[in-house]
Amino acid sequence: MTINAFEPPYAIFLGDEADPGFAKTGYGLVEWRNELCVGQIRFPGSPIDLGLPELSLADLKGKANALIIGVAARGGDISPDWLDALKEVARAGIDIVAGTHVRLSSFPELVAVAKENGSRLIDVRSPPPNIPIGTGKKRSGLRLLTVGTDCVSGKKYTALALETAMRARGVNVDFRATGQTGIMIAGSGVPIDAVVCDFTAGAAEILSPDNDADHWDIIEGQGSLFHPSYAGVALSLLHGSQPDAIVLCHDASRHTILGLPDFPLPALEDAIVANLESGKLTNPAVKCIGVSVNTSKVAAAERKEVLDAYSTETGLPCVDPLIDGVDAIIENLMETFS
Amino acid sequence: MTINAFEPPYAIFLGDEADPGFAKTGYGLVEWRNELCVGQIRFPGSPIDLGLPELSLADLKGKANALIIGVAARGGDISPDWLDALKEVARAGIDIVAGTHVRLSSFPELVAVAKENGSRLIDVRSPPPNIPIGTGKKRSGLRLLTVGTDCVSGKKYTALALETAMRARGVNVDFRATGQTGIMIAGSGVPIDAVVCDFTAGAAEILSPDNDADHWDIIEGQGSLFHPSYAGVALSLLHGSQPDAIVLCHDASRHTILGLPDFPLPALEDAIVANLESGKLTNPAVKCIGVSVNTSKVAAAERKEVLDAYSTETGLPCVDPLIDGVDAIIENLMETFS
Repeated sequence: MTINAFEPPYAIFLGDEADPGFAKTGYGLVEWRNELCVGQIRFPGSPIDLGLPELSLADLKGKANALIIGVAARGGDISPDWLDALKEVARAGIDIVAGTHVRLSSFPELVAVAKENGSRLIDVRSPPPNIPIGTGKKRSGLRLLTVGTDCVSGKKYTALALETAMRARGVNVDFRATGQTGIMIAGSGVPIDAVVCDFTAGAAEILSPDNDADHWDIIEGQGSLFHPSYAGVALSLLHGSQPDAIVLCHDASRHTILGLPDFPLPALEDAIVANLESGKLTNPAVKCIGVSVNTSKVAAAERKEVLDAYSTETGLPCVDPLIDGVDAIIENLMETFS
Repeated sequence: MTINAFEPPYAIFLGDEADPGFAKTGYGLVEWRNELCVGQIRFPGSPIDLGLPELSLADLKGKANALIIGVAARGGDISPDWLDALKEVARAGIDIVAGTHVRLSSFPELVAVAKENGSRLIDVRSPPPNIPIGTGKKRSGLRLLTVGTDCVSGKKYTALALETAMRARGVNVDFRATGQTGIMIAGSGVPIDAVVCDFTAGAAEILSPDNDADHWDIIEGQGSLFHPSYAGVALSLLHGSQPDAIVLCHDASRHTILGLPDFPLPALEDAIVANLESGKLTNPAVKCIGVSVNTSKVAAAERKEVLDAYSTETGLPCVDPLIDGVDAIIENLMETFS
């Protein structure tokens, strides 16, 4: 089953966006997939610069296989001012990829031009059709899932950092994306939270199919078992992923669930136990092999103390992936699964 | 928010269906809502008889507010042979309600006639639009959720039996439906397994809104925390329902998950603990107050022994609702929440 897949090289479209806060996808692509990006396209006067070569619309043919919309206009939209440019790209037969709330497919003129010229409009927030019901059937290969004490706790970043460092060590590894930004970076994936709930575990199953015995899928987690809005999403993803290993992700500055101050964050140990207990249903051997901590809001002088306390609590390597890297977690992974 | 609601009196449409196995909805309505059913409509020669007065299409106006399709043609379909009859009903301005896979809204001619004549076509498998994200915010009133060791373990039947017996005792109570047959019986509800997973807990929240302090919502459970395909559905429903009480439903003849022989059924006690541990997130006071057991495949001579063993294991009233009724569970409920 093809899961929203598209092919490099990529050109990154920045349009006329002025606020770098809306260019998360563009920056993510440059950080994690720089080698696949041939250039950026921006309107005159746009202040966002990803540091890629400047391209014009006329340059694209033969250079890029996909134009990735690297910004979301305010409101998660595709700006009507971009449409002429997007139609020109579609006319050149180049695929266009968007992760915005507003779908490319909602612009009939663009759809018509794309169809005529063999350009695919790929809305990565739309799940693929015909997702099967989960089966719980064991798949070959090895899998690691990042889980969280909360939403927005570094699950995507940690998964990408693990993939990058494992690949550098020569491990046979793939990042498997479950959210729109991750899918843009990976070039494929399933927007797991947009799947009808009866099929969510099945969607997680098709995301990491059978593979070589020594191959690792590093799966981007979503939600948290302790989040009253999204725990079902997290559980379906946990069951469908059948992880051999989990890494718990946590923001050290947070004491309650983001946006829900009545819900305390779980203790790390409780979060690990809950994920292992639930994960056992589809992989009885699941193990937690590390904790990835966002310490960006912790005073530098207290960082080591915080991480040491977490290590004592959990008996696991606890690192801030942005500062310490993820080597300590990978060493524990390699030792545990050697 | 209106959740697929429609109004009695009902006429039950049986068409030309010959196999009573496909008339689950019709039989369910007669069993649980007989007082709302004014009659049945069947084609000449149809052998299914719900025991309701026979009605003709010409009779309906003024007698019924809704025609409920009480059968599913083979394949979960609406038979093309029914269309002329359904159009006649729509022409009389009577709502038509279906729980089939194939939607009423997929027949353009029927849609046109209905629109012209103020008849609503209600597909109860389609979730309402604009379901909010769950908030976990505590709601007033009391709630009971039926949970299961598996799918198809008596959760709907038990909830309806509890509602009926509680109402007979003068309790302020409502059945809240989460599946298509339940919705047909209740006259409203949310088809929980058809909701996009990010919104499933939110859908459960709108299903049982704030209510009087002494009012009980008896919520139809779905799936099981131990089912690798659907545990996420069950968890979202558990969190969004915020039950004060749960009743565990179990088929005594089953040892593995239905259709998945590699997955053993959990022990009753493990199923109770898992549901209470998860349920605590949105209602720390949640209690299990009984076990509803399907003993239809247990030899009559062994029934008491089986139920006694379950009672010893769980310390709770364990009954087969079809044979013993649910009084023992209700007495425990009333005592626990008095």
